[in-house]
Amino acid sequence: MRRPLLDVMLSDDAVEELLSDEAQFAAMVRVEIALAEAGSEVGLISRDAAAAIAAALDGFSPDWADLGEGMVRDGVVVPRLVAQMRKAVGPQHAEALHKGATSQDIVDTALMLQLKPIIALFVDRLEALSRDIEGLIARDGARPLMAHTRMQAALPFTVATKLRTWSDPLGQHRHNLASTDLALQLGGPIGDRSSFAGKGDEIARLMARSLGLTNVPAWQSSRARIATLGGHLAQLTGTLGKIGADIALMAQSEVGAVSLADGGTSSAMPHKSNPVSAELLVALARHNATLVSSLYGGMVHEQERSGAAWTLEWLTLPQMLRHAGGALRIARHLLGNMRFA
Amino acid sequence: MRRPLLDVMLSDDAVEELLSDEAQFAAMVRVEIALAEAGSEVGLISRDAAAAIAAALDGFSPDWADLGEGMVRDGVVVPRLVAQMRKAVGPQHAEALHKGATSQDIVDTALMLQLKPIIALFVDRLEALSRDIEGLIARDGARPLMAHTRMQAALPFTVATKLRTWSDPLGQHRHNLASTDLALQLGGPIGDRSSFAGKGDEIARLMARSLGLTNVPAWQSSRARIATLGGHLAQLTGTLGKIGADIALMAQSEVGAVSLADGGTSSAMPHKSNPVSAELLVALARHNATLVSSLYGGMVHEQERSGAAWTLEWLTLPQMLRHAGGALRIARHLLGNMRFA
Amino acid sequence: MRRPLLDVMLSDDAVEELLSDEAQFAAMVRVEIALAEAGSEVGLISRDAAAAIAAALDGFSPDWADLGEGMVRDGVVVPRLVAQMRKAVGPQHAEALHKGATSQDIVDTALMLQLKPIIALFVDRLEALSRDIEGLIARDGARPLMAHTRMQAALPFTVATKLRTWSDPLGQHRHNLASTDLALQLGGPIGDRSSFAGKGDEIARLMARSLGLTNVPAWQSSRARIATLGGHLAQLTGTLGKIGADIALMAQSEVGAVSLADGGTSSAMPHKSNPVSAELLVALARHNATLVSSLYGGMVHEQERSGAAWTLEWLTLPQMLRHAGGALRIARHLLGNMRFA
Amino acid sequence: MRRPLLDVMLSDDAVEELLSDEAQFAAMVRVEIALAEAGSEVGLISRDAAAAIAAALDGFSPDWADLGEGMVRDGVVVPRLVAQMRKAVGPQHAEALHKGATSQDIVDTALMLQLKPIIALFVDRLEALSRDIEGLIARDGARPLMAHTRMQAALPFTVATKLRTWSDPLGQHRHNLASTDLALQLGGPIGDRSSFAGKGDEIARLMARSLGLTNVPAWQSSRARIATLGGHLAQLTGTLGKIGADIALMAQSEVGAVSLADGGTSSAMPHKSNPVSAELLVALARHNATLVSSLYGGMVHEQERSGAAWTLEWLTLPQMLRHAGGALRIARHLLGNMRFA
Repeated sequence: MRRPLLDVMLSDDAVEELLSDEAQFAAMVRVEIALAEAGSEVGLISRDAAAAIAAALDGFSPDWADLGEGMVRDGVVVPRLVAQMRKAVGPQHAEALHKGATSQDIVDTALMLQLKPIIALFVDRLEALSRDIEGLIARDGARPLMAHTRMQAALPFTVATKLRTWSDPLGQHRHNLASTDLALQLGGPIGDRSSFAGKGDEIARLMARSLGLTNVPAWQSSRARIATLGGHLAQLTGTLGKIGADIALMAQSEVGAVSLADGGTSSAMPHKSNPVSAELLVALARHNATLVSSLYGGMVHEQERSGAAWTLEWLTLPQMLRHAGGALRIARHLLGNMRFA
Repeated sequence: MRRPLLDVMLSDDAVEELLSDEAQFAAMVRVEIALAEAGSEVGLISRDAAAAIAAALDGFSPDWADLGEGMVRDGVVVPRLVAQMRKAVGPQHAEALHKGATSQDIVDTALMLQLKPIIALFVDRLEALSRDIEGLIARDGARPLMAHTRMQAALPFTVATKLRTWSDPLGQHRHNLASTDLALQLGGPIGDRSSFAGKGDEIARLMARSLGLTNVPAWQSSRARIATLGGHLAQLTGTLGKIGADIALMAQSEVGAVSLADGGTSSAMPHKSNPVSAELLVALARHNATLVSSLYGGMVHEQERSGAAWTLEWLTLPQMLRHAGGALRIARHLLGNMRFA
Repeated sequence: MRRPLLDVMLSDDAVEELLSDEAQFAAMVRVEIALAEAGSEVGLISRDAAAAIAAALDGFSPDWADLGEGMVRDGVVVPRLVAQMRKAVGPQHAEALHKGATSQDIVDTALMLQLKPIIALFVDRLEALSRDIEGLIARDGARPLMAHTRMQAALPFTVATKLRTWSDPLGQHRHNLASTDLALQLGGPIGDRSSFAGKGDEIARLMARSLGLTNVPAWQSSRARIATLGGHLAQLTGTLGKIGADIALMAQSEVGAVSLADGGTSSAMPHKSNPVSAELLVALARHNATLVSSLYGGMVHEQERSGAAWTLEWLTLPQMLRHAGGALRIARHLLGNMRFA
Repeated sequence: MRRPLLDVMLSDDAVEELLSDEAQFAAMVRVEIALAEAGSEVGLISRDAAAAIAAALDGFSPDWADLGEGMVRDGVVVPRLVAQMRKAVGPQHAEALHKGATSQDIVDTALMLQLKPIIALFVDRLEALSRDIEGLIARDGARPLMAHTRMQAALPFTVATKLRTWSDPLGQHRHNLASTDLALQLGGPIGDRSSFAGKGDEIARLMARSLGLTNVPAWQSSRARIATLGGHLAQLTGTLGKIGADIALMAQSEVGAVSLADGGTSSAMPHKSNPVSAELLVALARHNATLVSSLYGGMVHEQERSGAAWTLEWLTLPQMLRHAGGALRIARHLLGNMRFA
């Protein structure tokens, strides 16, 4: 189907796909299979059960309408999804699926699996963006440019000096994202792994290894991990927003320090060339700066699981990831269409 | 196509539809036709042109892929849409379409047209919600209930007294929304209506009348109107979030002052009945409280039109409307499934 | 003592004074006296008691260190303040003071009394600002000016047209503030006035009249009133921030559409004249746009009194009032020192 | 003089002092002396000049009223402060003071010097808080406790398991704060160090060493460093807010899982013991979660210096530091007065 026009402009196909319900579903399947395999390895469930689960979930296709109903009723997709999966597994091994686990184990761990390729994508794009800027420096770096402080012309420097203030922070953003602690969440109903019959820590070790995640204590009510990622995303879009603001200022008619090959057209003024991409970077930066509040606020997570705080994350983090993906795409486009006077 | 599960849980079909690209397109068509008719009435364009425009736009179906490309290039859908429309109108009267107008005239005025049924829907639901509460008062109002201050049992009062603290603010919210100033935006390229050959004020008067909007000076760079609506939405979800928080607290196992017929199930603890709807109201309230910042921040609107600030509104206001619609739906569901002990 | 340098730059002496602990104390004294007088009128306490209370509180000076200790212990100043006041009243009539009331009755009502002169001050300054702009229009209005959309020169218009986009919203802001519903809060411990022995509504009527506030049901847990005021303040600073942004852009060296008589000096570049006041307006607008979130979030007010949500208001609303007062002062200064080219 | 009652309740003496104008002044003096010494070492100024500067600034006391006037005019204290300092140095060496530097070099570097003891204080308190929790675990850890998910009693676990969810994140917060990159800012007027006659990098190296800061490229327009610290502070208060929310829920009359020795008193209900400190932690967490937006938004820093974005930081970061200091103090007090049932 058609994506909304606003998303076409601001978001990014690859990120959208990695954040889709389908991608979440695929990740949740991986988590349930990894749980079953680890469970069978430590003797919590039988090897037959694990094999039956893996077989049943291979190619399993959910009833989305039923999942939607479950979502409304339970506030989380997992109870209904597990019911569907158990039906697919068959009565003999149904109870072995999801054994000992809670909804949050599945959703949070699936999120970490979804984040892995998204973060890799962002790191790649940040590297490409750094190369783009190096290319601009190689091409235009020696040109003189007027520096501006407090909205006033200050003193001349060079394009290279200016561009280095843009690229300097990118390495840190790359480092921040690359060092995101993608961690298994496994706690069982109340986060103490007591539901795994004494094998919880061992299951966690095995699942973390098979899923390629780090193995840490259950973090179901300690959401610093999510806030940290949100902060890194807001910083990334903040830096790109600063680049956008600079370009919009330099591209002003009266300043003319840069020209844009792809300036937007106006429905009323054909002579204009609008710095659309630059403005979008500013908008995305400001929106992510606002959104991130919800993730810090969501750290006030009541007791062993807060439905309210958890839902607030779902409303916020994917949106911030979309904005970051969109901003990276737009920034590369913008730099590729910019020329210093 | 399938709606994302999160939207199924949190949003509302009717509001989604009223905010869709299709709904925006239909509203923009109405604005262009109204502009042409007003233009012909004051002699800016010919009667033939107005008739040709109305005829061409009747049943006109856009090339959405082309609009998407235009959105990316121009930062706004109108230039490409006008190009498509002019092609449909034919060369003779093409220039008469959109004559004197700017993109923002079309988009902002279309938004006002989209808002009209959304606000009517919210007002209806607020009335229904008030009636729901009156019904609860009639049924359970005389029962004793422990009041709580600062998270401690304080003194007993009655269910009726409690419920009136929920319904009292609803009238104000209804009044706020019902008195939203849905105003025509007509300014031309720089907001001074000079592009309408001296007929701008008269065109505005006619358009406002035919579209059922108020007639005010161009507000393209004065965005208080948008911030005001955002504030009202955040207040509405704030009040519903307070109701949700109260219910979640009253439904605690140890308190048991209310019971919920539709409590969510847990994937791990069959004995539980989770106050899912109540938690969702809290999450929506907190998210809208965060989002509204972007609308107040967007009032810092550079010069005669800020692409950055305008885009920020598009990222924010529709989301807040969705949250308000979802919260109203969820609140009614919650109250209909709640029983005082 | 010396005010912090940041406050000297950004805040306003008059507003600071009206928000001081001393001003709050004076307002709380007025509330307790009005309560006692109303109580005696309806027979809740004796006329002698009311007279003794009025006499004791006339010139009463609190022990601030003790109040500070009480604040830490109780989370609100009133319990300790009432203890001090009762001691001053003497054993015979001590219990008549604060009879039936709760801390929130005193603090919220005192806030309303404090707001009255602050709002009057803002309305006056908004009127003065409108006159300032009219003066600029009279002096410079006919001059040509280049309009800018999306950060690009668009088409010429006049200074008058530009300035009207600044003054247009001021009337609405003035109206919004002037129509702030300054309302008595009287609820007793749990908001139902049951502590006033059946005389609560009558006492409220008398107190509202003597204090010059409106008489509404207790709003201790319905905080829309506070959020509404916060929204109006954020809109006011938003409009002033837009003016600041415009001036900073017009004052750019390369644009030179306005010149500023009071440009800030640089410690390193004597040739510069920085648009300091314009930048401050932008900063205040952005900070208030951020802060206001806390007031909407604070509407999620648990049960009959939330210490957390109430404290959050105390951290937010006074700061927003300071910013609004500072922005109004700075805006007038800025317009008085600006000249169109 | 007397501190405002709200600060008495929420803030911390030590942090207040480290953030005072006096502390900033002392740090700025250190920066100017370090600059002069480094300048003399590389030959930018004479050894005599450096000695005269050090001598003149030893015990130098500023004219605060004059600094306030300068702040209003220049938007930053440094131009006026440098003028005062140069007068104190005397005409012969006046120009050697502040040579090559810009206001931001002084203010940002001074901030880093001010942050050093504040961060050390926070790290100490976090360690103490971890020890407090270990003490509680040692004393009460074996007791049974009901876990709660989604506001419902879930399954029993132990006090120790619960408390570890509180202490687990503290180590990360400590690590985050301890690894704050406290970096010299030295750029000269436009951030390229060209004003230091080719000796800028060498001066930076020397200054960083003498001031105990890291030596990095000028970061005057790249504000990720500030946003990073803000994020860490919001996470810290977020974790403490979660502890507060948990305690307030556990201390509910109907739950009674913990009792508080220092419960707040009510002016109307003597039987109550309010969880005031717990509520304050929630309020501080929510306020910091809101405030941090301004720091991410402030990363959209126009060109080589944005007065607006810089001022926004001044309005935000100190407040967040105060909140973090207050929350740490309050959290320790709360844990020291809590007993599990």
